[in-house]
Parts: sequence; structure tokens; C-alpha cells
Amino acid sequence: MKKKLKIGLFGFGVVGHGLYHVLNETHGVKAEIKRICVKNKNKQRDLDSAIFTFDKNDILFDSDIDIVVELIDDAAAAFAIVKSALENGKHVVTANKRMLAENLGEIYELQRKHNRSVLYEGSVCGSIPILRNLEEYYDNDLITSIEGIFNGSTNYILTKVFEEKKSYAEALKAAQELGFAESDPSLDVKGFDPKFKLTIAIAHTFGVFVKPENIINVGIDKISAVDLKYAKENNLTIKLVARAYKLEGQIVGFVAPQFIPADHMLASVRNEYNAVLVEGAFAEKQVFIGKGAGGYPTGSAVLSDISALTFDYRYEYKKFTQGEGFSFTNNAKVDVVISFHEKSAISPTDFETFKGGYQGNGHQYMTGSITLETLQSLSKRDDISVIIAPQLSLVATEQKVASFALNV
Amino acid sequence: MKKKLKIGLFGFGVVGHGLYHVLNETHGVKAEIKRICVKNKNKQRDLDSAIFTFDKNDILFDSDIDIVVELIDDAAAAFAIVKSALENGKHVVTANKRMLAENLGEIYELQRKHNRSVLYEGSVCGSIPILRNLEEYYDNDLITSIEGIFNGSTNYILTKVFEEKKSYAEALKAAQELGFAESDPSLDVKGFDPKFKLTIAIAHTFGVFVKPENIINVGIDKISAVDLKYAKENNLTIKLVARAYKLEGQIVGFVAPQFIPADHMLASVRNEYNAVLVEGAFAEKQVFIGKGAGGYPTGSAVLSDISALTFDYRYEYKKFTQGEGFSFTNNAKVDVVISFHEKSAISPTDFETFKGGYQGNGHQYMTGSITLETLQSLSKRDDISVIIAPQLSLVATEQKVASFALNV
Repeated sequence: MKKKLKIGLFGFGVVGHGLYHVLNETHGVKAEIKRICVKNKNKQRDLDSAIFTFDKNDILFDSDIDIVVELIDDAAAAFAIVKSALENGKHVVTANKRMLAENLGEIYELQRKHNRSVLYEGSVCGSIPILRNLEEYYDNDLITSIEGIFNGSTNYILTKVFEEKKSYAEALKAAQELGFAESDPSLDVKGFDPKFKLTIAIAHTFGVFVKPENIINVGIDKISAVDLKYAKENNLTIKLVARAYKLEGQIVGFVAPQFIPADHMLASVRNEYNAVLVEGAFAEKQVFIGKGAGGYPTGSAVLSDISALTFDYRYEYKKFTQGEGFSFTNNAKVDVVISFHEKSAISPTDFETFKGGYQGNGHQYMTGSITLETLQSLSKRDDISVIIAPQLSLVATEQKVASFALNV
Repeated sequence: MKKKLKIGLFGFGVVGHGLYHVLNETHGVKAEIKRICVKNKNKQRDLDSAIFTFDKNDILFDSDIDIVVELIDDAAAAFAIVKSALENGKHVVTANKRMLAENLGEIYELQRKHNRSVLYEGSVCGSIPILRNLEEYYDNDLITSIEGIFNGSTNYILTKVFEEKKSYAEALKAAQELGFAESDPSLDVKGFDPKFKLTIAIAHTFGVFVKPENIINVGIDKISAVDLKYAKENNLTIKLVARAYKLEGQIVGFVAPQFIPADHMLASVRNEYNAVLVEGAFAEKQVFIGKGAGGYPTGSAVLSDISALTFDYRYEYKKFTQGEGFSFTNNAKVDVVISFHEKSAISPTDFETFKGGYQGNGHQYMTGSITLETLQSLSKRDDISVIIAPQLSLVATEQKVASFALNV
């Protein structure tokens, strides 16, 4: 039967709090928190001070502790903890997507070397059990693409901006007050946070360990009032979408804002919810939706990992060990709508296939397909906004843009 | 490592075909189909006739066969096959929801007695891995409710009726031509098929084995043109929803048509797609969406079960073995909108709480809450239509019904 496991916890923020309470309120998991390592000696905390320590070695070298649960913000410090924990024979549960994304290949090797397990369901889309499903349920399926809304705070912001006509700044402030945004909001709004999650998802979907710096991320910070107006008039919404897919035997992946039709399954994924859409040869489209931010959803995922460790669960990384050895590439094209000020220097020659350009009220639009390289360089410019539009046939886009131009 | 398993297949219809092709086109699963038992001796089939047999004992008593995959229509014959397979030391994979729903308690006992595994992911919502997730991922979570669109053909019909203004008969015919509808369409449209699935889901969600005849099912066959008009004018859609939830330490469950607001996550689940919404104390709301009908999605789920057997997987039925021993009850109330011909004998006294009644163009509406017992008896009458409306505050419903009445 289940072993009674002792946990050493690093960090006692929103998720740590959530986990502590979830562990106390549920009875199915035979595990208890023995020590909690925190940084700030002067902060008032709502537990008996005896459980806290300020020295990481009190956990890492305690042979009574079976599992290190790492929930701190600092990716480099977190990775040092994970390494030391594995070297000291402990399993690890973590939700630190940046640390995982930057070191996943090495973490895979360390698990094999030390014969210990690192689980991290909480790192990708909060409470959605996507990694477990990719590992277990899809092992015989031929997945062709994975995409979705991987960031709760930007989805919250976009929902408020669209539905409640809040300004971007107001919506960001509300997201931060609710604890949905990262401590550095640029990680969310510039698309780094969903990129880290996509990096992890790519490893478990296609068996490829890719460095996050090789994946292009475009944020929601350039989306303008005219983009919103365009979206509304065409019965579209805008979501920040993380996406990876097979293309001629290689894997393409990126994060960028995308127009979504109102009747698309991702359109109804609102507020802090996340969604993952997996497309495969036989199961076809499947969508997983759940809360992607907040202490309880992530705490619940972390608890599921702890529970899995009581059954000696580990990720098999089957797509890597038995996979086809895909490589990652940015050599791909995407369909986009680009909006910009009249005087911006952008021309049809920036496109691979230029479909149309329209003008009105000081703004211009161009539609067509561009390379990911062009997407990246355009996204660095303050005077333009690029939004992916894969679901629009480009002819339809032309008509829609044209009809919009008349209405500006 | 994985064992190479031999399969004996019963039935070679849509799902059997799907499975055969999926097994041949994917390489991850170490299993092969050795024999296929079919009924009709004269039917032309696209495989070498040597693989077929007409005698079930050629599979059941073949000691070389490890797994019986049962994909026939007849629930009683299927149960006999499952019993005999287990007695002869074989694991079983089945997608026969009626057989499972009617015999799940006994199948649980037979698995324990013969130390063999029966897996049936394909029986509930096609390719959605809901049973595996309920078994594995939610074992520490406190689930409060499970609900969703559990039937692909009625969802296809309702989608066509709503979006393409097809008649009910046209939409049913289209669903049958696409292979989405059961051979007896009344199993779908009267809500029996989703009820069988709900019965299975209740066992894995709450640990209760309930007989399907104790669960109330209301179909979509009474939905009238005025119901559709009412829904459209109030920005609602209608879905056939299966639902089970905790109520004061007991479990309530039923299948009935339900008004769904346009921005609700279930509203965008269209055509043959199914959806399962799981609500828990910590993970909060999670939704799983995938194709619920057709040979490939179900074949994919059956294949996942076969793959799981190569890793000695079995359902633990943790909610039953470690659970709280819930009982099932129909002693509950639901909020509804009832529409009927002017002359129908229905009165405010049929309601537990009557909220309002309105009249126009030969039709009447009444809103309020009724008992499940009343729901069942009203649903048997041809002259009225009852639709669940839990998401509408009843005050809002009154206003909406009132505004509708003026527009009829």
C-alpha cells in the first residue's frame, strides 16, 4: 500500500499556502510537510514557527525527507535545489516552469542517473493534467499538434479588455490583485511564461528538448484599440496562443496573439482559465480546460504529483526514448494580420505571400503569410501589431479587412 | 518491457474497423489481432477470411489469446463474453456502455475474483480519457460534480437544428448517415445512451454502483420549435446534459436537456463532440472535450486500453474502496422552464417553488423548481417539454420568458 512520505517544502507563497491547506483538507494522500524553507526571516506567517527553516540544508540533508517540493520564484536557485535533492536521493515536485524549460534535458539525465523522479504537472497550465495525459494516454497516438491558452493572467486581461471594456492597465492591475500575474508581469504579457510551458509540453508531446531562447514569443502588449475594434466587428476574439506542430518531419513552435472565431472552442475559455488542444491522427481534436492560475489549482496539481510519488510514478519520456528524433525548426510561415501607423516602414515585400493592404483613419492593415523570422523582427517594433490569423481564409480576411476599413 | 499481446476481437463494425486500422497504422502498441468473431456468415469483409470465426469459443478457449476486445451491440451477449473471458484468464477491453452500466458491480467483483482487468475508456465519451483521469489524477481531489455532453449524435442533431435550421428528422438522418447514431436511435434521443455513460462515470467519480433504471433520463425528442425560438432570443443554446453531484452526503444524477448560455464552455461544444466538466474543491472546474462518436475516436480509446494492459494497468476503483460510501438518491429539486400547449393540464402546484407563468400564441410557459420525480412524470407526457435551466437566476428567467412572450 501507500507509503507515508515526508515532504520538505521550499517557498511558502500563494501555491505553497494552497498546497499546505489542500494537504490538510484532503485525506487520500499519505504525505505530510515536515519542514518549510523560506527566505524572509521577518515575515509574519500563520503556522507554528518550528516548521520553518532558513537553511536549505536542513531539508536537503535530512535523510527522513523523501520528497522536495520546490515552489520558489528564482529559477537558478530552484535548479540548484532540484540537483541537490536528486543527488541526496529525494524525489522532486516542482511547478517552476522557467527552471524546467531552461534545464529539462539535464533534469531528464539527472533523474536517470540518480534513479529518482521529478514531477511537474503544476508547471504547465495549472490544474489541467496535460503532462500525465501526454505521457500515459497518448502514448500510442500520433499527435500532430498541441496548442492552447497557456497563461491565465493574459487570458484574464484579454477577457476583461474585451468583455468589460477595461483598459489594458486596469485589467493588468486586477489580474495582479487576484494573484494571477507573475511577480514580473512582463513574463506574462510578453509571452515568456507561456513559452516556458510550451517548451515543457514539446518535450512530452514530441520528445524534443528545445531551449526556450530558440522559441519565438510575441506578447499581447502591442495589441491596439484598432485590433480590438477589428476583432469585435468580425465576431472574433484575441487570445495569446502557444502552439507547436509537426511540419515535414520537424517541430515548429511559437507563442503569439491570435484571432479566434467566436464559435471556436478556445473562444469560450475566459478569465484565468487555460486550455490545451491536442490534435492526433485517431483521437482527432481533444481539449482540456481548467484554471491556469492561482494557489489552489496549482496546489492541486502539485498534490497530484505527490500522490503519484506514493505509487512510485515517474515520467517515462516515451516520445523521447521511443520517438522519431524530431528536430526543432523556426523555418515556417504563418498567416497574419499586421496593423500599423500610416507612416511605419513596412511593405508587401516583408511578406512571403502578400494578400492585401487597406488604409483608414491613420491606420493601415496588411494581410498575408510571413516567416517566423519576420514575425520575430516585426514583433520587436513598437509601431506595429502582428496577430496570427490561421483560421481565416485569406480571401475572407481581405473582405473583412476591407469592410472594416470602410467603417473606421 | 512491454509484452507482445494477442487479441481476440468480437464484432467488426465501425469501431472494430477503426481499431483494426489504428492498430496497423501506429507502432507503439505491442499487440496484434489474432481472431475476429463475427455473426453474419455472408457479409463481404475486407480482410482475409482466415482471421474470422463464427464460434465464440475459438477465442474464449484459445489459451494463446491474452485480451478479449468486445465490440458487439447486444448487451446480454456481450456480458456473457466478458464473464467467460475473465473466467478463462483473459483481460477484457470493451466499449459497451449498456452492458457495463447494467453490470458494473458484478464486473468489479469478477475482476477481483479472477485477478484480471476490464478496461472501458471507450465506453464513456469516445476518445476523452475521462475514466483514466478520474481514476488517476483526481484520486486526491474532492470532486463535487461531474456533468457534460455525453452523447455525440444528439449533440450533432441539436447543433444542426440550431445552426443550420434543419428539422429534427433531417438532422437525425444526417447523424445516422455519418455513423454517429446508435442502431436504435431512441437510445440516443431519449437519453438512454448518455445515462449508461453517466452510470459508469458515477462509479469512478463517487464510488457508487447504481442501476441505470434508477437514474432519470429525459430525451431531446420533446423539444419544440418554440423552445428553440425561446433559446435563440435569449442567447441560449440547448444541450442534452448528463449530470451527477453531491447533495447532503448523497449522490444525485440525471440526464435532461438544459439551457446553456452562449458564453458557457459547453455552448461551443458542437456537432459530434462530447464534453465532461469536473468540479472539485481544489482544481475547481475542469473541462475535457473530444469526439464522442465515430469509429476512430472510440477505436483510439480502445487502443489506449490495450496499450495500458501491456503495462498491467487496472482500474483501482479508489472512490469505491477508499470512498465515503455514498448512496444514490432521486430526492432533489431542479430549476426548469416548462413549455406546453395552452390546454395541457399542468399547474403551479406541480412546482416546489413556482416562479412565473406566461402565455402567447397558443403556448404557455412556467418556470420554477420541481422534484426529479415530477421531472420524470412530466417527461412522459407528449404535450409538454421540460428543459433544465440551472444557470438562470429565476428572476432573470421570468424577465426573459416575459420578453419572449411578447415576441411570439
